[in-house]
Amino acid sequence: MTDCQGDGEGTMSPMELFEKLNAQGEKVRSLKSAKAEKAEIDAAVQLLLKLKVDYKQMTGQDYKAGCPPSENLIVSNNGPAADDCDGEDLVDPWNVSASSTKGVDYDKLIVRFGSSKIDKELLERIEKVSGQRAHHFLRRGIFFSHRDMHQILDAYEKHKSFYLYTGRGPSSEAMHVGHLIPFIFTKWLQDVFDIPLVIQMTDDEKYLWKDLTLEECHRFTVENAKDIIACGFDVNKTFIFSDLDYMGASPQFYRNVVKVQKHVTFNQVKGIFGFTDSDCIGKISFPAIQAAPSFSSSFPQIFGGKKDVPCLIPCAIDQDPYFRMTRDVAPRIGLLKPALLHSTFFPALQGAQTKMSASDPNSSIFLTDTPKQIKNKINKHAFSGGKDTVEEHRKYGGNTEVDVSFLYLTFFLEDDEKLEKIKEDYTSGALLTGELKKILIETLQPMIAQHQERRKQVTDEMVQQFMTPRPLNFKF
Amino acid sequence: MTDCQGDGEGTMSPMELFEKLNAQGEKVRSLKSAKAEKAEIDAAVQLLLKLKVDYKQMTGQDYKAGCPPSENLIVSNNGPAADDCDGEDLVDPWNVSASSTKGVDYDKLIVRFGSSKIDKELLERIEKVSGQRAHHFLRRGIFFSHRDMHQILDAYEKHKSFYLYTGRGPSSEAMHVGHLIPFIFTKWLQDVFDIPLVIQMTDDEKYLWKDLTLEECHRFTVENAKDIIACGFDVNKTFIFSDLDYMGASPQFYRNVVKVQKHVTFNQVKGIFGFTDSDCIGKISFPAIQAAPSFSSSFPQIFGGKKDVPCLIPCAIDQDPYFRMTRDVAPRIGLLKPALLHSTFFPALQGAQTKMSASDPNSSIFLTDTPKQIKNKINKHAFSGGKDTVEEHRKYGGNTEVDVSFLYLTFFLEDDEKLEKIKEDYTSGALLTGELKKILIETLQPMIAQHQERRKQVTDEMVQQFMTPRPLNFKF
Repeated sequence: MTDCQGDGEGTMSPMELFEKLNAQGEKVRSLKSAKAEKAEIDAAVQLLLKLKVDYKQMTGQDYKAGCPPSENLIVSNNGPAADDCDGEDLVDPWNVSASSTKGVDYDKLIVRFGSSKIDKELLERIEKVSGQRAHHFLRRGIFFSHRDMHQILDAYEKHKSFYLYTGRGPSSEAMHVGHLIPFIFTKWLQDVFDIPLVIQMTDDEKYLWKDLTLEECHRFTVENAKDIIACGFDVNKTFIFSDLDYMGASPQFYRNVVKVQKHVTFNQVKGIFGFTDSDCIGKISFPAIQAAPSFSSSFPQIFGGKKDVPCLIPCAIDQDPYFRMTRDVAPRIGLLKPALLHSTFFPALQGAQTKMSASDPNSSIFLTDTPKQIKNKINKHAFSGGKDTVEEHRKYGGNTEVDVSFLYLTFFLEDDEKLEKIKEDYTSGALLTGELKKILIETLQPMIAQHQERRKQVTDEMVQQFMTPRPLNFKF
Repeated sequence: MTDCQGDGEGTMSPMELFEKLNAQGEKVRSLKSAKAEKAEIDAAVQLLLKLKVDYKQMTGQDYKAGCPPSENLIVSNNGPAADDCDGEDLVDPWNVSASSTKGVDYDKLIVRFGSSKIDKELLERIEKVSGQRAHHFLRRGIFFSHRDMHQILDAYEKHKSFYLYTGRGPSSEAMHVGHLIPFIFTKWLQDVFDIPLVIQMTDDEKYLWKDLTLEECHRFTVENAKDIIACGFDVNKTFIFSDLDYMGASPQFYRNVVKVQKHVTFNQVKGIFGFTDSDCIGKISFPAIQAAPSFSSSFPQIFGGKKDVPCLIPCAIDQDPYFRMTRDVAPRIGLLKPALLHSTFFPALQGAQTKMSASDPNSSIFLTDTPKQIKNKINKHAFSGGKDTVEEHRKYGGNTEVDVSFLYLTFFLEDDEKLEKIKEDYTSGALLTGELKKILIETLQPMIAQHQERRKQVTDEMVQQFMTPRPLNFKF
C-alpha cells in the first residue's frame, strides 16, 4: 500500500511491535479464512515471521499472542494473561479451547495464572473450619485452584464473616447442566458457612458482545434467574441483580465502577482481555462492572456501608482475568482483594476440548430437555472413551479420562464408591460404553426432572423478591 | 532500540500510520520538554518528517494531528475532529488555544466542525417564532454557530415541544463569570420557549480526569449547583443532576449510556477526542455519559417514557466533539439527533488567546470576588487594546478587538447603544483604557454582588429539590 522504506521500527516500543504482530497475525488469519490468493497469504506470513524475529531481537522473548511484553502487564505478580502463552490451550472469558482430548491442562493453567492449587491441606482445612465433609466438586478436583482461600478461612476462624459473589452472562433463555456447576457449589458454600451471596447477571455484557437487544438480554436475566433460584437459594440470604437494573438503582455500585475505571488503562485491558482499537468503548470499560461486586461497599443495603467485608468468588477459571485485574486495582482504591475458587470447565458432549455452547443444542444437556432428549443426546453425541468393538473393549478396556459420560458422572454422581467402581469396571472392560451411558442417563433424567419441577414453582414475584435491593438476614 | 530493517510500513493502514505519527509527535514534544540532547531531538524530528512524507504518499493528504484519515472518521459528514487541523487554533473539550490575540478564528471553526453559522435569517426566525427580541448573546455573535436549529423551530411552530440540555464539569468550588454564559443564555431560552431543562453535572468526568476524590467532585457539584440555581432557574421546569447520583438512580439513563457505548469504538473516540492507549478505561467510555442526556428517554420521569422529544444543547463550541459523536450514533440506536447552539469562549483577563482557568485566580473574575478584588483584577490584569501613552492613545485610538475590558462588556453590558458608543469613543481615542476599565468595573461589581445575594438565598433543601428526579411542570 505504500512505498516508504520504513525505518519506522526504530521508534517502536516492544508494546507497539507486539501490537503490530497481533494485527499481522489477525491479517494472516483473515486472508486464510477469506481464501485469498496463495501469493498474498505467503507474503503476509513472511512479514509475520520477520516481525517475530524483530520482536525476539528487541525483547529477548518469543512472541506469543495474548502475552504482551512484560513491563506492560499489570498482573505481573500473578503471571501473564490468560491466553495460549506457553502451551496450546486458549483460556479467556470468551474462548476456551484445548488441544488435547483430555481437555485443558489445569496444572499448567495454575502456573500460568499464578493461582494456587487446592491441595490436601486446604481441603482438610475447609472441612475442619466448616465442620462438613468437602463437597465432591472439591474432593474430585472440579474446583481445583484458588486465590487467598486460606485468608478467608483465617478470618472466618476469628469470627469475621465474608460473602460470596458469583454470576452469569444471560446470553439465551436456555441454560445447560454445565451452567449449574458454580451455583450448585455456591449453594453448598452458603449452606456450610451461612453467609450472604450476591449473583450478578451481566445482561449489559451480553448486550455489548452479542447481537441482542437490551430487552432480550434483560428477559434472559429473568429466565436464567429462575433456573438459579431453582437451585434452592434462600431469598433471605441471596441478592440476584441485573446490571441493567442495579447500575441504575445504586449510586454506590456506580461509584465503585468509576473507581475501577479510573485505575485501569486501555493498555491493561488490551493485555488482559485482548481488546483491540476496533472494540466498542462499552466492551473496553465493562471489566470494571464485573469487578465492582467484589467490594462490599457496592451493596450498602446488605453490608450497611461496610467496605471491608471480604469477598469469595466461586467461578470457572475462564473468569479469572476479570479478577486478576480486580485484585490488582483493589489496594490502589483502598479496598480488599477478593479471594477465588476456580473450577474446571464442564465438557461438551462431543469431548473435553471445548466448553459447552448454549447455541448448539447437541453440545450439551439443557435444563429444559425431556427424559427422551437426554437419552438420545447421550447415546448419540456423548464422546466415548471405549473401544471400537465389544471384543476390543472387553480386552483393552475404556479410557475414563476422555469418556464424556464418565466425566459427567464425576460432576453429578455423588457416591464416591459407586463412581470408583464404575471407573474400575470401565477401565477393565467389564463395563461397556452403552452401559456407562445408561448410568449417566439414569443419573441425569431424575436430576433434571427435579430441577424442572422446582423451576415451575418459581414465580415472577419470587424473582422480583430475589432481585430487589434490600437488607439480607445478616448483621454487619 | 531495535535493529530491524522494517519493511513493516508496507502492512500499515493509513490509520495505523496516522497513529504512529501521533506517537512520534508526542515523542518529539516530550523530548523537547524534557530538554533532551539535541542529537536525540533532531533524530526524532527527522523520523517525524519522514513519516509525514510516507503519510502524504499513502493518503494524498497532509498529516494533521487530530485529523485521522477520513475513512475512519465517524463524523465525516460533519467535518474532521475538533483539533488544529487547518490552522493554528486548538479546540477540544480539554484544550483551547489560539495563536492570534483576537482569539480563535470562529469562521474557520464552523467550516472545520461542519456546523452552520447563526446568520441574520436564523436570528430573525428565532425572534419571529419566540415573539421576543433575540438575546444580546445572539445579536452580538457570542452564540455564533448551530446544528439543526431550523428543525427545532420548524417543530416548535407545529406545536411540537423540545427540551434544553446543558451542563457543567464541577472541577472546583469556584466558578468564574465565564461559566455563567451558557446558563444565562439557557435561562433566556427556557423563558422564551417555556420548555424543560436538564443540567448535567459531570462529577464522574472530573473524578476521572483530575486528581480529586469522588467526594470532592460530588461536593463541587452541589456548590456549583447553587451558583447555577442563583441564575434564576425555575425548580418546576429544571432538573439538575450529578452523574454520580443519577447513573445510580435511573436504569433508563444507564440503558442509553450502554446503547451509545455499544455503537462507538475506541478508534472513533481516539479520532474524536485524542485518547491514547494509556488513558484509563473510564475516560474512554465517558463520552457516552455526556451523550445520553441528549435523548429524552434518559428522563422518563420528565418525558413519560417518550423517546422522541427533540433536544437543543446550548454549549461552548469546545463541547461540540461530544455531540458530533452523539449525532453520529443517534440514528443507529433509533433516537433523535440533538440540535446545538455554540458559543465562543469567554476570554481570560490576560487576553483572548485562551479560555479562562478556574485554577488561576488572576485569570478571571470569580463569582466570589469582592468589589475590591474585581476592581484590582481588572485594573491590574485586564489586557488592554489601548496605546502605551495617553498621547498616542488620543492620536491613534484603542483596539476593541483585543481589549479584554471591551470584550467583557460585549458579554455583560446589555445596552447596544451604550456599547456602540464605547466602541466609537475607544477606537477614536476619546475614551482612555482606565475609563473603559472603570465602565467594566461598574458593570461587574453590582452584577456579581447581586449574584452573591441570590446565591445566599439558595438553601441545601432547594439544591436537593432541583436534584431530585421527578416530573416537571410539563405534559408529554
